Amino acid sequence: MRESIKVFAPATVANVGCGYDVLGFALEGYGDELILTRRPDDRLVIASIEGVQGLPLDPLKNVSTVAINAFLTDLDLKQGFDLRIKKNIAAGSGLGSSASSAAAAVYAANEILGRPKGQLELINYAMAGEKLASTKAHADNVAPSILGGVTAVRSYEPLDVFNISYPESLKVVVIFPQIEIKTSDAKKILRDEVKLTDAVKQWGNMAGLISGLIEHDFERIGKSLQDVIVEPVRSILIPFYHQMKTLALEKGALGFSISGSGPSMFCFIKEEGASSEIIEAAQVLYGAYEIEVISFISGINKQGAKIIE
Amino acid sequence: MRESIKVFAPATVANVGCGYDVLGFALEGYGDELILTRRPDDRLVIASIEGVQGLPLDPLKNVSTVAINAFLTDLDLKQGFDLRIKKNIAAGSGLGSSASSAAAAVYAANEILGRPKGQLELINYAMAGEKLASTKAHADNVAPSILGGVTAVRSYEPLDVFNISYPESLKVVVIFPQIEIKTSDAKKILRDEVKLTDAVKQWGNMAGLISGLIEHDFERIGKSLQDVIVEPVRSILIPFYHQMKTLALEKGALGFSISGSGPSMFCFIKEEGASSEIIEAAQVLYGAYEIEVISFISGINKQGAKIIE
Repeated sequence: MRESIKVFAPATVANVGCGYDVLGFALEGYGDELILTRRPDDRLVIASIEGVQGLPLDPLKNVSTVAINAFLTDLDLKQGFDLRIKKNIAAGSGLGSSASSAAAAVYAANEILGRPKGQLELINYAMAGEKLASTKAHADNVAPSILGGVTAVRSYEPLDVFNISYPESLKVVVIFPQIEIKTSDAKKILRDEVKLTDAVKQWGNMAGLISGLIEHDFERIGKSLQDVIVEPVRSILIPFYHQMKTLALEKGALGFSISGSGPSMFCFIKEEGASSEIIEAAQVLYGAYEIEVISFISGINKQGAKIIE
Repeated sequence: MRESIKVFAPATVANVGCGYDVLGFALEGYGDELILTRRPDDRLVIASIEGVQGLPLDPLKNVSTVAINAFLTDLDLKQGFDLRIKKNIAAGSGLGSSASSAAAAVYAANEILGRPKGQLELINYAMAGEKLASTKAHADNVAPSILGGVTAVRSYEPLDVFNISYPESLKVVVIFPQIEIKTSDAKKILRDEVKLTDAVKQWGNMAGLISGLIEHDFERIGKSLQDVIVEPVRSILIPFYHQMKTLALEKGALGFSISGSGPSMFCFIKEEGASSEIIEAAQVLYGAYEIEVISFISGINKQGAKIIE
């Protein structure tokens, strides 16, 4: 019986242009680490959180422990754990920070307990954690953080999630200006009703993006990475969003959109070469206004959550 | 130089569950025929219409001549034609009757003139014809009637249409109760605004339907053939819609939805065997209320419009 396990769960990009609350994908090499250690009692204890300040240590208020608690309750199992969390993703970045912690927690618990549940089922428990960070439980970050790749949430009731295949040469550039936007605030500014004509554009682009990804049609991927519903509203919260988008598209980006609820932005690129120009443009644009920006290139992470020790 | 040409353009199913104004596919063996013959002058003359009563012979009011006129105007060509139309699709059936006539007309004109335009461009001219029959120009019927297969209209401005691959073993059962619904009326009862939560469900299902079709995942196709926006409203105009849907699903249909604006309905099936039970159920249901119903099984028509003589 394993006493301790160390896992990694990747950062993620949710929404992905036209796929609000449906699409997401996992990033490479950027995510949270978690060491889970059995306790002799049935308590869940957050022993430490490194990397991000101010996250709650109270197990009722931390996404990781809430997620594990939902998992253990469903298993009807009394087993306590100590959690040591190393966060690499800033909260409020739009890169699935809370989802990554929730995903790492349930993934680690499932592995240490000998996999009583399948990966798809883990999404439900991670969503219970995610619910703390947002106004409702959503799966578009936790699904790719657990499963890896590009994921689609077809339905929430019942939960139906699957992977979408994609060209491995597709790369992502992430641009993260150092300001914080809370998911709950970003959700508040969305209207409850949308124009039918806009909704039609959105699912037309969804048809294009999904078929473009599966069929490795880069031109179609780029054309379809549009969002006529959420981007016009949320981009207001991101300084110089439209300037950054224009610069990225000029430098060869295949579409450009907001990552999750922002302020991170992302674009797809076909050639790695384009990335340095886009990253430089971001430095110049935000540097001029003294806003720090973290930008990097990533592949799409195929594996998702994994054991690292 | 060819003097005369006879073409066929198939009937089509538009919307396809979650794909309102975006998705469509062509049916096999059911469609309109058109004989186009050069005239010595530059007039467009509808010489005859067989099969359906009451369609306009006035070239300014008939979808076929309006479509050809848009095509010739764009080519800046003065060439008259006689049109002999044989309609097999009833107007107001929801099976793309006007689209089929418009598609046949521009396809025939393009062929007789030595293909000055590509197939994708023809969609624009056929849409000009379609506009007569609806409140706005839409492409979800004309695109599959011209191109064949399953088509998606990603964008209207600019027009961006492409084919979606699908499993060849996928069959369709069409159920057409003999009542008429005008597309323009069916559009009127739709609301201009929809709930964002419903729109999310719709594009989640779109992700499922497109990936299910391309990856030959029949279960996913069936689950994704849902429509939470248009079906709840338009189904009111179709007698016994929900009873028919329940019967078809019980008998093995992979999803069930309205074809275009109705009253025709359709379902996908994996095994041809299920079709006779669904067709029989339709006969019994509508027979009990003395509503005549035409039902048939079809493959998805791969070729689209074609020359037959």
